[in-house]
Amino acid sequence: MRPEEILKDLGYELPELPVPIGVYIPYAEYNGLIFLSGLLPVKDGRLLYQGRIGKDLSIEQAKECTVQIVLNCLSIIKSNLGDLEKIDRCLRINGYLQTSEDFKDHPLVLNAASELIVKVFGDRGRHTRIAIGAHTLPMNSPVEMDFIFSLRGLARQS
Amino acid sequence: MRPEEILKDLGYELPELPVPIGVYIPYAEYNGLIFLSGLLPVKDGRLLYQGRIGKDLSIEQAKECTVQIVLNCLSIIKSNLGDLEKIDRCLRINGYLQTSEDFKDHPLVLNAASELIVKVFGDRGRHTRIAIGAHTLPMNSPVEMDFIFSLRGLARQS
Amino acid sequence: MRPEEILKDLGYELPELPVPIGVYIPYAEYNGLIFLSGLLPVKDGRLLYQGRIGKDLSIEQAKECTVQIVLNCLSIIKSNLGDLEKIDRCLRINGYLQTSEDFKDHPLVLNAASELIVKVFGDRGRHTRIAIGAHTLPMNSPVEMDFIFSLRGLARQS
Repeated sequence: MRPEEILKDLGYELPELPVPIGVYIPYAEYNGLIFLSGLLPVKDGRLLYQGRIGKDLSIEQAKECTVQIVLNCLSIIKSNLGDLEKIDRCLRINGYLQTSEDFKDHPLVLNAASELIVKVFGDRGRHTRIAIGAHTLPMNSPVEMDFIFSLRGLARQS
Repeated sequence: MRPEEILKDLGYELPELPVPIGVYIPYAEYNGLIFLSGLLPVKDGRLLYQGRIGKDLSIEQAKECTVQIVLNCLSIIKSNLGDLEKIDRCLRINGYLQTSEDFKDHPLVLNAASELIVKVFGDRGRHTRIAIGAHTLPMNSPVEMDFIFSLRGLARQS
Repeated sequence: MRPEEILKDLGYELPELPVPIGVYIPYAEYNGLIFLSGLLPVKDGRLLYQGRIGKDLSIEQAKECTVQIVLNCLSIIKSNLGDLEKIDRCLRINGYLQTSEDFKDHPLVLNAASELIVKVFGDRGRHTRIAIGAHTLPMNSPVEMDFIFSLRGLARQS
């Protein structure tokens, strides 16, 4: 199945394109490496939640945020490539969580995003990851994530 | 106009090369991807400011820091490539801000850096970006930023 | 001397492979760029230390953590490439430290990791680096680090 069909089967729709909050672009490609800007859990122009995970938000609510960010990410890729099939691999997810002072379950929160990426892209969705607790994030967002993907047809053999 | 001339027109001079604060190098290139180390707002061997943005520093002072970091970044590129024209694109800016506990205006601060990069390189300066609030930064610096650029002449076509 | 021999001479053994704490993979390669996931100072299945550097841990203990992470990193590379000689360069180390509120000696802590990488790989171990103080890290770990390496035989000439 194509990634777009898998998303539909899972009950997700690609959201409207998130608007950059500043003087930057959402997407840049060089020699098959695709860099995405840090994305926030924005839906219909508003953050899903605000505040600190472990204090103002539950882990389940933080997971919702990471899923929304993955959908925003896919929406940006789709608008740039026209077709999610053009993705070769998800190489990296960087996850930044605005947490309470004693939070330690970062992996649980980010697994929701990772699982969705793997469902959508299959084995090619299997990625490396970092999980960092941020002191603060833009607009009091509980989560920010950025991504590196690779593009089909530009891989070289060693 | 060449990037060097644009800088001069804006009233900026390339500062002396910042000295790495540790066992690392400021610049590494591989297949046209240029990675720069995390840079601090050092001028003439001293930090412009110290402390937390939103508590010890204003947003305007933090913007000064990001501009100084961009100048330091350009100075490193110039010393490695000899000519800023050899830059293909600015692909990524990672901005880490040492903030007060309730700070949320990270994009405003980083826009000062982003705007300068776009002025200097034009459309080729348009970049992806992340904005993260750090708990602490080296030497009590209010800002740390790192960069990924690409080099002309090594881009491949899909 | 080969990197494996240097490690042995220094009195280090490659540790058992660290198990990813979540739905991600430890290693991904694309066109000669190797991305490693964020690594924790895990030894024999347990964190060396927990807590905040500058409060619960000394700088010396934090340095031990970064050395353990480098060993874990080399273990992952060895298991993927079979031979550390296949590494072209260490391009980047990203170091995240869970610190006390007034900590500013991040470079000192990370130098222990940087020095080991340079000992093992010689000039090809000289890397760019960022040093960030995180608010929290997974499992109350004092350190998380990730790495970008390049692979021999895939470098292109400009």
